[in-house]
Amino acid sequence: MFRDHTCGELRLANAGHTVTLAGWVQRSRKLGGMTFIDLRDRYGITQLVVEADADAALVEAATSLGREYVIQVVGEVDERQSKNPKMPTGDIEIKVASINILNKSVTPPFTIEDESDGGEDIRAKFRYLDLRRNPLQQALALRHRLAHEVRNYLDAQDFMEIETPYLIKSTPEGARDFVVPSRMNPGQFYALPQSPQTFKQLLMVAGYDRYFQIVRCFRDEDLRADRQPEFTQIDCEMSFVEQEDVLNMFEGMMRTLFKNVLNVDIPDPLPRMSWYDAMDGYGSDKPDVRFGMTIHEITDKVKGNGFAVLDDAAYVGAIAVPGGAGYTRKQIDEITEWVKRPQVGAKGLIYIKLNDDGSVKSSIDKFYTPEQLKAIAEAAEAKTGDIIFIMSGPQKRKVQTMLGVLRLEMGGRLGLRDPKVFAPLWIVDFPLLEWSDEDGRFYAMHHPFTAPKPEHMDWFYSDRKEDLEKVCANAYDFVLNGNELGGGSIRIHEADVQKRMFEVLGIGAEEAEYKFGFIIHAFQFGAPPHGGLAFGFDRVCTLFAGKESIRDFIAFPKNNQGRDVMIDSPSQIDQVQLDELNLDIRQNA
Amino acid sequence: MFRDHTCGELRLANAGHTVTLAGWVQRSRKLGGMTFIDLRDRYGITQLVVEADADAALVEAATSLGREYVIQVVGEVDERQSKNPKMPTGDIEIKVASINILNKSVTPPFTIEDESDGGEDIRAKFRYLDLRRNPLQQALALRHRLAHEVRNYLDAQDFMEIETPYLIKSTPEGARDFVVPSRMNPGQFYALPQSPQTFKQLLMVAGYDRYFQIVRCFRDEDLRADRQPEFTQIDCEMSFVEQEDVLNMFEGMMRTLFKNVLNVDIPDPLPRMSWYDAMDGYGSDKPDVRFGMTIHEITDKVKGNGFAVLDDAAYVGAIAVPGGAGYTRKQIDEITEWVKRPQVGAKGLIYIKLNDDGSVKSSIDKFYTPEQLKAIAEAAEAKTGDIIFIMSGPQKRKVQTMLGVLRLEMGGRLGLRDPKVFAPLWIVDFPLLEWSDEDGRFYAMHHPFTAPKPEHMDWFYSDRKEDLEKVCANAYDFVLNGNELGGGSIRIHEADVQKRMFEVLGIGAEEAEYKFGFIIHAFQFGAPPHGGLAFGFDRVCTLFAGKESIRDFIAFPKNNQGRDVMIDSPSQIDQVQLDELNLDIRQNA
Repeated sequence: MFRDHTCGELRLANAGHTVTLAGWVQRSRKLGGMTFIDLRDRYGITQLVVEADADAALVEAATSLGREYVIQVVGEVDERQSKNPKMPTGDIEIKVASINILNKSVTPPFTIEDESDGGEDIRAKFRYLDLRRNPLQQALALRHRLAHEVRNYLDAQDFMEIETPYLIKSTPEGARDFVVPSRMNPGQFYALPQSPQTFKQLLMVAGYDRYFQIVRCFRDEDLRADRQPEFTQIDCEMSFVEQEDVLNMFEGMMRTLFKNVLNVDIPDPLPRMSWYDAMDGYGSDKPDVRFGMTIHEITDKVKGNGFAVLDDAAYVGAIAVPGGAGYTRKQIDEITEWVKRPQVGAKGLIYIKLNDDGSVKSSIDKFYTPEQLKAIAEAAEAKTGDIIFIMSGPQKRKVQTMLGVLRLEMGGRLGLRDPKVFAPLWIVDFPLLEWSDEDGRFYAMHHPFTAPKPEHMDWFYSDRKEDLEKVCANAYDFVLNGNELGGGSIRIHEADVQKRMFEVLGIGAEEAEYKFGFIIHAFQFGAPPHGGLAFGFDRVCTLFAGKESIRDFIAFPKNNQGRDVMIDSPSQIDQVQLDELNLDIRQNA
Repeated sequence: MFRDHTCGELRLANAGHTVTLAGWVQRSRKLGGMTFIDLRDRYGITQLVVEADADAALVEAATSLGREYVIQVVGEVDERQSKNPKMPTGDIEIKVASINILNKSVTPPFTIEDESDGGEDIRAKFRYLDLRRNPLQQALALRHRLAHEVRNYLDAQDFMEIETPYLIKSTPEGARDFVVPSRMNPGQFYALPQSPQTFKQLLMVAGYDRYFQIVRCFRDEDLRADRQPEFTQIDCEMSFVEQEDVLNMFEGMMRTLFKNVLNVDIPDPLPRMSWYDAMDGYGSDKPDVRFGMTIHEITDKVKGNGFAVLDDAAYVGAIAVPGGAGYTRKQIDEITEWVKRPQVGAKGLIYIKLNDDGSVKSSIDKFYTPEQLKAIAEAAEAKTGDIIFIMSGPQKRKVQTMLGVLRLEMGGRLGLRDPKVFAPLWIVDFPLLEWSDEDGRFYAMHHPFTAPKPEHMDWFYSDRKEDLEKVCANAYDFVLNGNELGGGSIRIHEADVQKRMFEVLGIGAEEAEYKFGFIIHAFQFGAPPHGGLAFGFDRVCTLFAGKESIRDFIAFPKNNQGRDVMIDSPSQIDQVQLDELNLDIRQNA
């Protein structure tokens, strides 16, 4: 070992001991002839001192050190004159007796500090230097800790971690599959898994009872800020369970993570909300319940006063923003412009203020009496001093979604979305099917193996679209602070239910065989009742840290173009490789 | 839950309790009007009894059950008349009150027993049924347990598990890379990692100090029986360490695995053997030291008697097989034919028997006196009753390798290779460089980032081939029972040593930049001294179980053609996908 202690370890109790440390030079400064050096490693920072009257060679060595030099020092632990209570090692310093430069460093292109002076691009290119910064080291340490706690919890619950293959089969549905040409089977391709879904269901058929895996998944889709072409899931499945069992097991897991990693107690049991209540009250299937400001339908309250916009609307909804009566005209205009941006897509925004003096002010004063306006505002649970914002339109869910986006924005502006406050809940009772007007058919809201609720079987076997739309799935999402962290379902395990599902989805026997053949075959050999879920691990880490950027929680992430700019990948490959793979790149693309 | 107990759980203490179980029908038999059913799940088997005088519907339900039906039963735990001491649940049975068929099963294509009647191909196609068999369930349970113990040990030692990317860059050396075409970057490819080697070294540069990962790796090579295109490594790296630190850390890990998983004590410290001693004594860099029968050089003892084969040989070696003096002429002929097969490649085999009556018998009686033969045999440490086998040739290492193969074969025949006996050791002091006569240049025996031993630096900077051949690396392999389970090295962290290494390997500055550019750049910014290793996890699992087939320890393995016959992959993909990827498959390949 090049050291006998780490840079985060020494305390006053070690005073007088001779120690050997190794690490990086964080900074170095001269003060009255003495040289002070902050020596850094993963575990912390320790202050080194080279006295003014030290050996000339030693003083020169200390003076020669540049930022990020790697050094080994021997010296005596000494009590500091001016202690630094902010640092765990702040009570001591090392009186250096010798310095051994293990490696020099050219000057880094940005500062290795909590707040770096480097831009995003340069830090991505030199990711290995960015990763030296404390916030990123903490992010990856948290990730390690969470993964370890997940494994301990699930192991204790008799789950087996079973590795499923990465080289699998491209499915006809797999438009977003990454594919891998096979050299040994020319013209044929493997695909990288978008999830181990079929394999985990096969493991249930195979009797493994409780499976999990922290596993990489791949999706070749156009990237948004929070998406990565490769991402990590905590993937789980259980046999002989009902929805209640799955929810209990995994809220237990999340409760353990919150307690053991953050020392945060979350409610027991966790709140549950139906998908319908989430959409109606929050305009989102992943509601942020850290604050109220819920959506209220006021369709019936606003009709019949000759205001066509509202009279013609199929749905009118409102949220009440606390203290919003004080907003200026300019502020309200700005909010109105904000909701009219294409990202939100509202046509406009109606408001009613309940002023502190008891008066009412609204953008629709012309059509409604003050009493009517007050009644409308109170229907949205506004109190004196609040403003309500009203939106309307021909489609209820669309209006609710826009109100939900506005709600989040206003909550944020009011400081109601503290990332260190955690409000997890389950969303349950999802619709099984989604009707597509465009295609004139139903699609599975989750996937075609999700089981309908037993109590909705009559509707499931009905021929009426209205009945089928009412069928709920035994599906569930784990939602935290407005983010879906995970989700899953009880799966169909009976052949006749599965057959009906394909029928409802308009998938013929032949198509079903082609698309889902081997899993349907497997299910003939005694599939147990089973269900499970998967958590997006990158996002779990990010939210546990109270942060927003998933990339900070991935050691080597890709950018928005799917590129790793550090290693400059993807890149061209040798012609020899293309020849071996029997492939040609089209030249005139 | 569909059950309140598992099928492995109930004991005599539960007698009288009413329980609900769920599982698969392992077998069912009628006996004097009663129906006995073995109900199976991952946890065990429980015997169910339906009495002859039970409700007629219940008797009929019990009679209707086929193999692998999934059922749920309610009944009372009852003490068995004839107990089965071989089963943990053998003291009890369940008097069934009701049976609920959860799912039927068509008849499986082979028996789901410890020894199945199914051939390898059919079991591969129906892997999800093969995985129901007890030996495979135990194999995957062992794998889970080992992975969990690895993580606990390394976590306790401050290692962080950090996920490195799977979509990386194809290297010019990467002839065996699987590549992944990028849709967003037409004509460009990612590669799947053959190992996270560069990333783990970058993590050391980034200051992560102690890294590990249980990680999938990919290699597109022609497959042998024990190779898979995707395989799993326990990949580790440490900073500020010397070889001694790495060896101590990881023999500690293996000691913990042996103790916690198998309750086996391995020596502390583990034996170490130099690569030279392994080659000289065992003809292998992964010696099986469960038995002796080591190779002895007898070159000097056999010269000058006019026997040209030995007189002309650069090297003559021998092994002494205990009790082999009793071999018949026919047996010796068979062994001689065995070593002459192309897999071994010997030209012939000379023997000397030290008969129990004190006489000597040899295939080279003509050239040597009995006293000479006896002296030769004793030089190979033969005792009365033994036979020695002699091989010779122009190249020492080749002869030793052939003798090593013969040694393993004879050890096997003598029952000296018990898979439940564990003899781990470290092989150290590998040569840094391998000379290729063909190419007239040196190659790195491990990889070009492996550090030469500090005490061999003079030879490393020498221009003489003989000096360079003597340079040893700080490299090490963990060997168990004739298998390499893992290996690694201390890496070069100093720019001038790295530069010299490229020079020795005949890699010019430009080529080095092209092939290893970004890692060389990274090393300019203060790379710490570091080193590590990787274990082949599939093989670790296999050997811990005392088995040979790696495939039994992988849930969904591929066959020798790299195919997953269960999902029929690789396969053709849609033209749409090829279009999106801007690729054409050559038609006249």
